[in-house]
Amino acid sequence: MSPWMVDLNSDLGESFGAYTLGRDEEVLRFVTSANIACGYHAGDHNVMGRTVKAAAEKGVGLGAHPGLPDLLGFGRRRMELDPKDVYNMTVYQVGALAAFARTCGKRLQHVKPHGALYNMACRDRRIASAIAEAVAAVDSGLILFGLAGSLLVEAGRAAGLTVAEEVFADRTYQPDGTLTPRTDPRAMVRDPEEAVRRVLRMVKEKKVTAVDGTEISIRADTICVHGDEPQALAFARRLREALQSEGVEIRKVGEWLGSS
Amino acid sequence: MSPWMVDLNSDLGESFGAYTLGRDEEVLRFVTSANIACGYHAGDHNVMGRTVKAAAEKGVGLGAHPGLPDLLGFGRRRMELDPKDVYNMTVYQVGALAAFARTCGKRLQHVKPHGALYNMACRDRRIASAIAEAVAAVDSGLILFGLAGSLLVEAGRAAGLTVAEEVFADRTYQPDGTLTPRTDPRAMVRDPEEAVRRVLRMVKEKKVTAVDGTEISIRADTICVHGDEPQALAFARRLREALQSEGVEIRKVGEWLGSS
Amino acid sequence: MSPWMVDLNSDLGESFGAYTLGRDEEVLRFVTSANIACGYHAGDHNVMGRTVKAAAEKGVGLGAHPGLPDLLGFGRRRMELDPKDVYNMTVYQVGALAAFARTCGKRLQHVKPHGALYNMACRDRRIASAIAEAVAAVDSGLILFGLAGSLLVEAGRAAGLTVAEEVFADRTYQPDGTLTPRTDPRAMVRDPEEAVRRVLRMVKEKKVTAVDGTEISIRADTICVHGDEPQALAFARRLREALQSEGVEIRKVGEWLGSS
Amino acid sequence: MSPWMVDLNSDLGESFGAYTLGRDEEVLRFVTSANIACGYHAGDHNVMGRTVKAAAEKGVGLGAHPGLPDLLGFGRRRMELDPKDVYNMTVYQVGALAAFARTCGKRLQHVKPHGALYNMACRDRRIASAIAEAVAAVDSGLILFGLAGSLLVEAGRAAGLTVAEEVFADRTYQPDGTLTPRTDPRAMVRDPEEAVRRVLRMVKEKKVTAVDGTEISIRADTICVHGDEPQALAFARRLREALQSEGVEIRKVGEWLGSS
Repeated sequence: MSPWMVDLNSDLGESFGAYTLGRDEEVLRFVTSANIACGYHAGDHNVMGRTVKAAAEKGVGLGAHPGLPDLLGFGRRRMELDPKDVYNMTVYQVGALAAFARTCGKRLQHVKPHGALYNMACRDRRIASAIAEAVAAVDSGLILFGLAGSLLVEAGRAAGLTVAEEVFADRTYQPDGTLTPRTDPRAMVRDPEEAVRRVLRMVKEKKVTAVDGTEISIRADTICVHGDEPQALAFARRLREALQSEGVEIRKVGEWLGSS
Repeated sequence: MSPWMVDLNSDLGESFGAYTLGRDEEVLRFVTSANIACGYHAGDHNVMGRTVKAAAEKGVGLGAHPGLPDLLGFGRRRMELDPKDVYNMTVYQVGALAAFARTCGKRLQHVKPHGALYNMACRDRRIASAIAEAVAAVDSGLILFGLAGSLLVEAGRAAGLTVAEEVFADRTYQPDGTLTPRTDPRAMVRDPEEAVRRVLRMVKEKKVTAVDGTEISIRADTICVHGDEPQALAFARRLREALQSEGVEIRKVGEWLGSS
Repeated sequence: MSPWMVDLNSDLGESFGAYTLGRDEEVLRFVTSANIACGYHAGDHNVMGRTVKAAAEKGVGLGAHPGLPDLLGFGRRRMELDPKDVYNMTVYQVGALAAFARTCGKRLQHVKPHGALYNMACRDRRIASAIAEAVAAVDSGLILFGLAGSLLVEAGRAAGLTVAEEVFADRTYQPDGTLTPRTDPRAMVRDPEEAVRRVLRMVKEKKVTAVDGTEISIRADTICVHGDEPQALAFARRLREALQSEGVEIRKVGEWLGSS
Repeated sequence: MSPWMVDLNSDLGESFGAYTLGRDEEVLRFVTSANIACGYHAGDHNVMGRTVKAAAEKGVGLGAHPGLPDLLGFGRRRMELDPKDVYNMTVYQVGALAAFARTCGKRLQHVKPHGALYNMACRDRRIASAIAEAVAAVDSGLILFGLAGSLLVEAGRAAGLTVAEEVFADRTYQPDGTLTPRTDPRAMVRDPEEAVRRVLRMVKEKKVTAVDGTEISIRADTICVHGDEPQALAFARRLREALQSEGVEIRKVGEWLGSS
């Protein structure tokens, strides 16, 4: 076993009815964990059924990807949210996805909130706790995915869950460990090779250089990759190869990340 | 233990957002099983959370009440349905409700399809099988509720499920055991005392007289009662008393109905 | 004609499918303008058809009451909104309601945004302008209802619309003319007689005393009354009588408020 | 002016939120009438705004394309429908689309029901009348599109509307003038050149050969073309050229089809 382990996750099952989104089949060939939309911001029960089956057949870790009840806005618009409401929408969506996993003889591996819900959970302690407690109440064996170093990670641990800290290959970090907002021209890492080098360093050295040059500590249990555009797919493949050639083992978090 | 056992079920959790429907608190005082809406034809994740908690506290059997994705029509309008779609909408809704049960430390007891989905399942073998197989795939320990003698009952048994045969106190039967359609003037039993006598006979003698005078065999594991109007509530109470004074034990199906 | 004219408006048509909300029939007996839900936060096409017909028969001014696409939250939850999105959701909902008016041989009189959309429009110039421009683009003869003195009123005038300034009988005002937030214990006027006196003064003297004792100028073209609870209905009737006995003429804005 | 006039129509504006469907820009280059989805089976208020603007700029006839409230099923699934409900859903959707036309300084040209609503309207007199009466009540100057020779065409005329009879280039006909059901292997005209020849004959001779060889009379005011696949687009361009080279003038129905 390698001294360095990492998981690659991607959002899947975002089609809806007659609408197709994403290149799920291709993405399933190189990720180890799938965040599957649960019918609120994207996905529907038929898409969920098909996606869970396809992911299960590839041995990819099955994750619920709960989002805001806003198909029109794809769950990307912030809304005024009561924590109880967040708790209940998480229970609902995680439960629905978990049932599809059971119909394939599998168990759910993880939960990763989507879009605006993820962003709010990383910064708002009440939203973070509502999600973490809902996940723990449904199944305390589930792994919670959250932005490395965020309040969501903290809330997950406080709720007794195993937490996978997530990093983004194409985003820069602030000295305090948060992501640089997209409104800042320095938000994105545009050079794929630089992105690869940064990820390797996060995984192997647990360090990343913030936009102001500060060295910060970071834990990278899972890396978020995208599969909606040809470029994104090519980068994900390149990243995968680089990690492997550098001796990093790519495996789903459920197989190596534990409370131990 | 009485030689005669019966369950009383009612539809609950049909409110939605700012909209209140039904008298759930009162109904929970005299039913033994609750069919809880799952967000498709009625109910939302907050209503589900509250309703499951209230039912669990009363010791009432928790049931998922999956319906068609038609809030506007309250799941009462038939739609063209692909069996695979029915399978997936059942998995989704049962899974969501089951998760709320788990957050209360309970297990789901049963599944009863709602409205047009129930009616279609009772007469269309493909719809019936899709529901039964979905329920069995999610949790083979769940009890399926279906119209006494219907295809849904058959499909449930074929899928290896325990089935609770359901009767209606206020409806008459055809010689073939199906309900008299509401378009027929003889469809309803309007006299509450006659309704009570008919139910007692179904429970104790397993017989009911069809509209044409034919004696038919029927099995009454669970009786559907309504709680949306004061009259309906009064009748349900009257029925409960009559059953008890006649020596019929009223208990949730999960405690006495088994594959044995 | 009286020197003092005022309009009474109320929200109507908030039922949805099997769900009934409000006492529309009673409310229609004493208001002069109806704000009719358009299917986004409440209402559906059948409710709209019935409500427009009932209001038209009473001679009540027909208004579109566009809201956020959030039936679950009844349009009361703030969301992140792009002004172009607000423009389009306003065009859509106003157009739908206007069509029902035409099927009754009537024209729409006014538009009043609902809930969170109203609150955001009163304080956010971009939201206010998006609404005002959408209304003007659909029909420049429509009257826009907005909180007296707010940015929505300003935006309406800038878009060339006739604007009806709205006051609330049961709410107190800040020295700057905005409503005292509901989180402030002084937000509500709880004594009905005091509420009546305040409204009379707003209508006849165009003045109201703010929570700190400051006298502020206010224009009261239309008064918002509620009809969802028996108490609210009783107050609305009392207010109506008081206004009339004090010589204030109660008539729908479309008959007397103009750009002249 | 040519002795033969025909309109080419296509379904547009079927995207929804983050989901893109169709090649609207390309289709707008060769059709003369656009059937624009109204938010029930497809489309949303933003898509409607963009599509109406794009179609208006090209001078294409603007049409409302009302459908069933079933985004999940893309309006293609039959549902149990009350005629009053159909009337109201038509008023709602036509009104919403008409408002977008007004914001572009245009008037709506036509209404064509979508999918299952179209199919039901062609065969069920009550559904057909509900649609026709709704359209006439909103604006008696609108043109109703319906399958050539169908009950929808009849109902439109009975409601006093101008009706455009629609033919399908890639479908065969039964001796009674209805379309051959898709379940029949002879339903489709697979050879593009044969399809072109059939259309030319329908337009110029008002005749088509049914599947059994019978010659039937048909009126082709407008031809439905598809633009969702490269093949469909290529065929539509080929058809357009063939019609023009055979002396058929291709113009939107609003310019030449009247009650005269």
